[in-house]
Amino acid sequence: MSARPDRPFAFTVEATDPSSSARACRLDTPHGPIETPVFMPVGTRATVKGLLPPQLKDLGAQVLLANAYHLYLRPGGALVEQAGGLHRLMGWDRPLLTDSGGFQVFSLADTFRADDEGASFTSIIDGSAHRWSPEDNMRLQNQLGADIVMQLDQCTPYPCEKDAVAVAVERSAAWALRCRQAQRNPAQALFAIVQGGVFGDLRQRSVGRLREIDAGVQRFEGFGIGGYSVGEPHGLMFETLGDVAAALPADRPRYLMGVGNPSTLLTAVAQGVDMFDCVLPTRTARTGTAFTSEGRLNLRNARFASDLAPLDPSCTCPACTTYTRAYLRHLVLSKEMLAPILLSLHNLHFLIALMRRARQSVLEGTYAAFLEAWRSSAAAADF
Amino acid sequence: MSARPDRPFAFTVEATDPSSSARACRLDTPHGPIETPVFMPVGTRATVKGLLPPQLKDLGAQVLLANAYHLYLRPGGALVEQAGGLHRLMGWDRPLLTDSGGFQVFSLADTFRADDEGASFTSIIDGSAHRWSPEDNMRLQNQLGADIVMQLDQCTPYPCEKDAVAVAVERSAAWALRCRQAQRNPAQALFAIVQGGVFGDLRQRSVGRLREIDAGVQRFEGFGIGGYSVGEPHGLMFETLGDVAAALPADRPRYLMGVGNPSTLLTAVAQGVDMFDCVLPTRTARTGTAFTSEGRLNLRNARFASDLAPLDPSCTCPACTTYTRAYLRHLVLSKEMLAPILLSLHNLHFLIALMRRARQSVLEGTYAAFLEAWRSSAAAADF
Repeated sequence: MSARPDRPFAFTVEATDPSSSARACRLDTPHGPIETPVFMPVGTRATVKGLLPPQLKDLGAQVLLANAYHLYLRPGGALVEQAGGLHRLMGWDRPLLTDSGGFQVFSLADTFRADDEGASFTSIIDGSAHRWSPEDNMRLQNQLGADIVMQLDQCTPYPCEKDAVAVAVERSAAWALRCRQAQRNPAQALFAIVQGGVFGDLRQRSVGRLREIDAGVQRFEGFGIGGYSVGEPHGLMFETLGDVAAALPADRPRYLMGVGNPSTLLTAVAQGVDMFDCVLPTRTARTGTAFTSEGRLNLRNARFASDLAPLDPSCTCPACTTYTRAYLRHLVLSKEMLAPILLSLHNLHFLIALMRRARQSVLEGTYAAFLEAWRSSAAAADF
Repeated sequence: MSARPDRPFAFTVEATDPSSSARACRLDTPHGPIETPVFMPVGTRATVKGLLPPQLKDLGAQVLLANAYHLYLRPGGALVEQAGGLHRLMGWDRPLLTDSGGFQVFSLADTFRADDEGASFTSIIDGSAHRWSPEDNMRLQNQLGADIVMQLDQCTPYPCEKDAVAVAVERSAAWALRCRQAQRNPAQALFAIVQGGVFGDLRQRSVGRLREIDAGVQRFEGFGIGGYSVGEPHGLMFETLGDVAAALPADRPRYLMGVGNPSTLLTAVAQGVDMFDCVLPTRTARTGTAFTSEGRLNLRNARFASDLAPLDPSCTCPACTTYTRAYLRHLVLSKEMLAPILLSLHNLHFLIALMRRARQSVLEGTYAAFLEAWRSSAAAADF
């Protein structure tokens, strides 16, 4: 099937790496293009913590992520719609993606319950009871108005009984169909989500179910790969991720959800993943730690007390071109807001620039060498 | 005495109001001019909380204030000097002023003790014991390298026995002389500080002592007026402030320390004050409250939950031109960093713009009408 003319989400594979599955692509959206591989900063509650949209643009952020679960609880879908949608509410005119809140079924499990008809949960704000069907969730994400919306899915933890994972795979596929049928807004792309935990056969079953809907009922504009990075041993994901990516349609974007470790991103790119998001860079920033070309750098360390070098001498972000490690450490120790602000700017810049260099090397046919250089770098040894 | 050619702190009175003591002046400094009346944002620990220097420049901030006491404890004067001074450390290339820390003798009194020779105090960080003579404090402020430095003074609380206030007046004058003799850096202006609490005769005695030094020993580049806004009833300051300002040399700037209420600022301008600083706009911002043309606006109020109007429709700051009250309230309730950031931008803009308009009206000879319009406004009723 080819893209329908009324769906402005053209996806173009611009280059593929000769020695891996890495690729450089472009996804058009109503708010502009997304060039991949791409890292998407997370703005859970319609704000990337501590950063204003002009600062994010200056970093080269192409697309931000927000969370339908959190925005549903506050300020609410109706208010966001009344305000003219998320873009206008938060002052961001580039592409936006909303996650459905399906991951919260997993991550806030003590207040959630999933059955075939949907998810029941209590508010983390006031304890009130709520219930979402897949259709309810699509209506909510339609009110929010992001360019890309994710299906309501059920994520499983690690470890998890295989039977339970299989139930989540079938339920997520059934919800994908219902989301697809409910999502009628041509200005919003719907991504289905692959589940299956660490079980290769269940991952393939999940891909198969979604492709049946995609081919037989209606096209998905892209595919999320969920259910990884949920506590499983480091690297276990890569026993199945490559096969999942390879089994997905080549003419649609592949989005590995919730992964932000730089080394993991680059390996996933080699396996054919296009899009990433994670709170890791901003959350790490709030603990006083920076991602640098020499690895993680914890500014609380006393050795930085009179270090007048930039955070990362090879970095061009505002934190590195203006300030010293000694000043940043002073801000961290003094609990000044400028510490998480500057370190968030820096850490986001690190991942955004890394993905931009990865893309450039794919375009130049040198991704294998780029990946090898990363893996032998001081940074890789620490990530 | 006229300014010495090696002291680049030319002070020009550009206009005086025909109906009050309000004036529009210009103080040159090695990092550029300061046009008065002016409000100086406070960056106690070498950072205005949550705001980066480019954002402060965009607001029109001409000069920032930092605090020698806090910077002495961390990161330390030697480190700041080694880093090339405060301007370079914090990435701010416009004028800076450092307060001596004298006010902390008052505000952190349980860990401080003053005698004729100086101040003894224990660190709020690690409890270690420290002692400053006036000369020590000048050496510290020299290491910090601000354009304007304040003498070490002794501030008295309210209420306070007159005898104790008289001691502080004499001691502060003695320290002013010692600071003047110790401050030899021609790139730094030294301001003496008037004390005397609410006692008009002691205020005049303080001015007299400082003028004796100014005329008989060596010139001060400006005068701070300290010891107000320390808990006395609202308005009591104005029983003596005008006489203090009038008694100070007309050819030097007058800086009313630690006052940030908009109505108070405008009345003080009418009595001849040129410069102001206060943590009020940024501290108020962190509680979720905005200064607006309609008065104080507490965003926690439920009536703003679906209010899609700007914070202050008449304001041109980034918070007001991009965001709605409903979004800002969402940020406040969600404890998102963007709430204090955007409200700090707005509240600082409010005071900076108010002083700019005050200046303009003095230049146009219409300050009386400007003040009258303010006093009959919705905002004034709430400040």
